[in-house]
Amino acid sequence: MEDRQFMERALKLAEKGRGRTSPNPLVGCVIVRDGEIVGEGYHEQAGLPHAEINALKQAGDRAAGATMYVSLEPCNIHGRTPPCTDTIISAGIKKVVVATDDSNPKVAGKGMAVLKKAGIQVECGIFKDRARKLNESYNKYMTTGLPFVTLKVAMSLDGKIATKTGSSRWITGEEAREVVHRMRADSDAVLTGAGTVNADNPSLTARLDEEGIRQPVRVILSGDGSIDENSYVVTSARDLQTILFATEKITLRKKDRLEALGIEVVVIKSDKAYVSLRRVLAELGKRQIVSVMVEAGTALITAFIESGAYDKTVVFVAPKVIGGKDAPTFFAGSGISDIKDASDLKFSDIKKVGKDVMIEAYKK
Amino acid sequence: MEDRQFMERALKLAEKGRGRTSPNPLVGCVIVRDGEIVGEGYHEQAGLPHAEINALKQAGDRAAGATMYVSLEPCNIHGRTPPCTDTIISAGIKKVVVATDDSNPKVAGKGMAVLKKAGIQVECGIFKDRARKLNESYNKYMTTGLPFVTLKVAMSLDGKIATKTGSSRWITGEEAREVVHRMRADSDAVLTGAGTVNADNPSLTARLDEEGIRQPVRVILSGDGSIDENSYVVTSARDLQTILFATEKITLRKKDRLEALGIEVVVIKSDKAYVSLRRVLAELGKRQIVSVMVEAGTALITAFIESGAYDKTVVFVAPKVIGGKDAPTFFAGSGISDIKDASDLKFSDIKKVGKDVMIEAYKK
Repeated sequence: MEDRQFMERALKLAEKGRGRTSPNPLVGCVIVRDGEIVGEGYHEQAGLPHAEINALKQAGDRAAGATMYVSLEPCNIHGRTPPCTDTIISAGIKKVVVATDDSNPKVAGKGMAVLKKAGIQVECGIFKDRARKLNESYNKYMTTGLPFVTLKVAMSLDGKIATKTGSSRWITGEEAREVVHRMRADSDAVLTGAGTVNADNPSLTARLDEEGIRQPVRVILSGDGSIDENSYVVTSARDLQTILFATEKITLRKKDRLEALGIEVVVIKSDKAYVSLRRVLAELGKRQIVSVMVEAGTALITAFIESGAYDKTVVFVAPKVIGGKDAPTFFAGSGISDIKDASDLKFSDIKKVGKDVMIEAYKK
Repeated sequence: MEDRQFMERALKLAEKGRGRTSPNPLVGCVIVRDGEIVGEGYHEQAGLPHAEINALKQAGDRAAGATMYVSLEPCNIHGRTPPCTDTIISAGIKKVVVATDDSNPKVAGKGMAVLKKAGIQVECGIFKDRARKLNESYNKYMTTGLPFVTLKVAMSLDGKIATKTGSSRWITGEEAREVVHRMRADSDAVLTGAGTVNADNPSLTARLDEEGIRQPVRVILSGDGSIDENSYVVTSARDLQTILFATEKITLRKKDRLEALGIEVVVIKSDKAYVSLRRVLAELGKRQIVSVMVEAGTALITAFIESGAYDKTVVFVAPKVIGGKDAPTFFAGSGISDIKDASDLKFSDIKKVGKDVMIEAYKK
């Protein structure tokens, strides 16, 4: 019972780093001696000390003989900071309770093995599912080298993401839109198509009334690079990192122009008009982009679903009906014929956000 | 605090009558003396005694000086049973706590007035919203003479109610389908179009593993009466009450044939191919049908939404995506152009049902 309470606290601490630790995971740590918390810490930002080190620092001498609760297996590797296992051992920690093992193949159980070998009692598995979900992006990235992809959709109860004429501002209410800004701040990148940029002129930034918001890298897909040069995304590209993926259909003149405007242009060879999503994700992975949020129109969302190049869908459903046979839904394409061939998802979190409903669905 | 507990119990008792009291309301009653329940009752079925009478009978002599908790204002009118107010007064009840007043214009406060005049203390308003929702169908019927209309929809997360070829069995899982059977059992009528009958051959019956299920009246709309005579709805019409609404386009021969098969055919004059929904609902109201559940395809659901002739939508969202530009959504028609013109609904209950999500939305 006490174990669960302290791990709950560690998970809560871990959350505090959200949006700032990438490409590192979120980690929280609590040190307990004689039933009392003597040290707490979390991983605040990539490059800064790990959660365990922050907690040990706060605990000081009281760490000797204490129990450590940590939401992720302590690392045994030299990164930008020394291995946590060394510090834990020399602090005299008696027992380490871990929520889940580290999906980094360089750690993956080895951290716990090092602790055990040093005579420390190690337990693993309390709130494992929650701890794994906390770092779902990191886990995918560590095991595949590809970012975790979330498709974000705002639709009416009758499934429309815009009216027949393309009007879509705003389908959802303020609270849902604030959650979307939060999702952007927590994502390493926000991805959309040139079509959406040219039609809606979105900023793709996280606008939250808060200090220290890290803006996501903006990623635009455009086969031939035809993007409105007066769009906000282009005019703000000197201040906000922006990458445009194009195929060889882009002219050199266009490429030079966009680069002069501050946009990084990445050309991916393709015999189609479309940029390969798999290759885009691989390129983003190489740039240490661990999580990508897709905010796009029907064509691009459909491409992500049809290619299976996504992990999660977050759908905001608004309490309104739009109607119209020609009003778009988020998934078009050729579609299936037999209902038995539908792609199964798994609903996770379902909740009201203001007057809207948020449905989180994982690809199975 | 105690008041709320006893009213909670009264509301729970009221629920027990669900599906059997129409055209009467659901009512539960608890009689309390010295903090203890001495009598309980609910309205079990139209024609049988009211909740108050059942509770008073159980309380016997102990009703004298007791407090009555009743989820709906006691009636002061002679129906199939004598006025409850008379029986309450002669039983010596000291105080009556009511959740909400009766929307029947013949009662509407007069029941409480009669009690007060007899020197009984009367309080009203505990759990008022819940008590009103319990009888939302009755309330609409009593104030308008029209049935309460619920549109039931089963769709994929991407808003499709079928694939592009019309395949729709099954979008939702077993648990959601069982809730739908329960909704049918609780409805006085289930309404669909001849198109759905001819394409899907539904039974429109409530199939629940339970005794005493009251089957809803089946209502079919068909401008010219063209309905498959081998369909289950037609072949079972001698056993299950079935009404077909047609326009004057129906031939006399067709009408005679359907009537010979056990279907009641109601012809409504119309200069359109479609039957007027308002007139259909008025006709159903005349037949004491208090609640109608619409289980139909896009065309008919769209007609209900466009004409505003509905009260509530219950949408089951399945964790799957279907895709296809030509796969139908439940609301087509011409649709709006500006998102600001979308019809606003109000979400009420949102819950997981098995692996699906059920969203209840009221017309504003």
